Amino acid sequence: MPKEIKTITVIGSGNVATHFALALNAAGYRIHEVYSRSFQNGQALANRVRANAVSDFASLSSQADLFLFSIKDDAYEEALSAFPHTDSLIAHTAGSLPMDLLKSRSSRFGVLYPFQTLSKEKKITFEDVPLLYGGSDENVGQQLKAVADRISNKVSFASDEQRKSLHLSAVFACNFVNHMYALAQKIADANDVDFSLLHPLIQETAKKALTGNPSDGQTGPAIRGDQSIIDEHLSRLKNEPKLQDLYKLISDSIGNHRS
Amino acid sequence: MPKEIKTITVIGSGNVATHFALALNAAGYRIHEVYSRSFQNGQALANRVRANAVSDFASLSSQADLFLFSIKDDAYEEALSAFPHTDSLIAHTAGSLPMDLLKSRSSRFGVLYPFQTLSKEKKITFEDVPLLYGGSDENVGQQLKAVADRISNKVSFASDEQRKSLHLSAVFACNFVNHMYALAQKIADANDVDFSLLHPLIQETAKKALTGNPSDGQTGPAIRGDQSIIDEHLSRLKNEPKLQDLYKLISDSIGNHRS
Repeated sequence: MPKEIKTITVIGSGNVATHFALALNAAGYRIHEVYSRSFQNGQALANRVRANAVSDFASLSSQADLFLFSIKDDAYEEALSAFPHTDSLIAHTAGSLPMDLLKSRSSRFGVLYPFQTLSKEKKITFEDVPLLYGGSDENVGQQLKAVADRISNKVSFASDEQRKSLHLSAVFACNFVNHMYALAQKIADANDVDFSLLHPLIQETAKKALTGNPSDGQTGPAIRGDQSIIDEHLSRLKNEPKLQDLYKLISDSIGNHRS
Repeated sequence: MPKEIKTITVIGSGNVATHFALALNAAGYRIHEVYSRSFQNGQALANRVRANAVSDFASLSSQADLFLFSIKDDAYEEALSAFPHTDSLIAHTAGSLPMDLLKSRSSRFGVLYPFQTLSKEKKITFEDVPLLYGGSDENVGQQLKAVADRISNKVSFASDEQRKSLHLSAVFACNFVNHMYALAQKIADANDVDFSLLHPLIQETAKKALTGNPSDGQTGPAIRGDQSIIDEHLSRLKNEPKLQDLYKLISDSIGNHRS
């Protein structure tokens, strides 16, 4: 039976660190200390979760069952080399960093990766945020899973490779989707039509992807092979050669996936 | 004061014709006759809205204040030449057809275009479907607007050009977005990760587009100019050269729109 984690120290005070600290505290974990490069931000977060704010990283107490690092990707190297303890359980929260980055500081390490866009200012229902965990061994994995299960209803194991693949698929389903919305708005604006007219379509399209297979629900001229509408659209984009290229390449890709 | 429309004859029995007939009937309009090339489908729709089903197009009664055509784009030419009346008010429901296609049959004509994906089988709240109207003159425009206002809360005027632009922007915001979802699922499937993990991200991304400016809400490696993650993603797609091209072109487009 893996040892239960009760006390957690949080390193970082950004968007992800903040949401984690609040959710862990609300779930009954004791947040022992908060360290942030910005002492002011660290203090503010510590106050919200009744923790001590630490100004000097080297004086961080060793009395925590888990040290949760949630800092910028490029800050890990420096932070890890300055971390004053060995053999503590440590975990990071990054999507694209390998787990064994932490190996240099401890033999017990892992990941708790929240798979959602998080902003400090925006309240979210943390239980609905998918949490992906991984551990240096089965025991650590179970310890971290137990923590994850207390703050989220959507907990899954993910290897480094799976985490990176999820990150890549999120670029398509979130970042690229948002750019399509932005281009749609650009076209609407250029033609004096109100972008809000598209809201119901945007909602319905997202809803369909949550209930069915997106590739089965594909509609529009490209999947129908309706070349006369495709040509009309390309001619409407004649002053935007880059948009034309994008329209063509995505339409071709839709056509290639026709079954 | 334009003459109020009270009695409507519907030509067609497909997805759009069905939703229109049901919504108009529910709003208190009398559906006088329904004509469909498939008599069986026409009869089924007529029964649902307490109308007469007509089997012979030439025998269509002239006693309707509006003849609403909702048929396939490429069926209009034949249907219009066979339409037995002149000087009736007629309207079509197509996104990409010019309004004055109807000129050959009447001097009073217009458009009622529903801007949403509609399927016969799927119930929708018609009041939430944006309806775009246009008329051959101010009087006809007001008559059609009055009808639209009784069945939808989202009624706007749109010229032929605006309607076509909306159709183009919908290709981006709906068809292309759906393809991004499909590609995300393909990547997730190939790496044995569950696509449903992406659902919360898909929902949040759509929600953001409904409340803010999509171009302001852009996130991800391309807008940050994070070349090391972009390169890692491209190398993960090395066996999918077409996906690589798509990833590059969309990332470039996001970069070009950086402010």
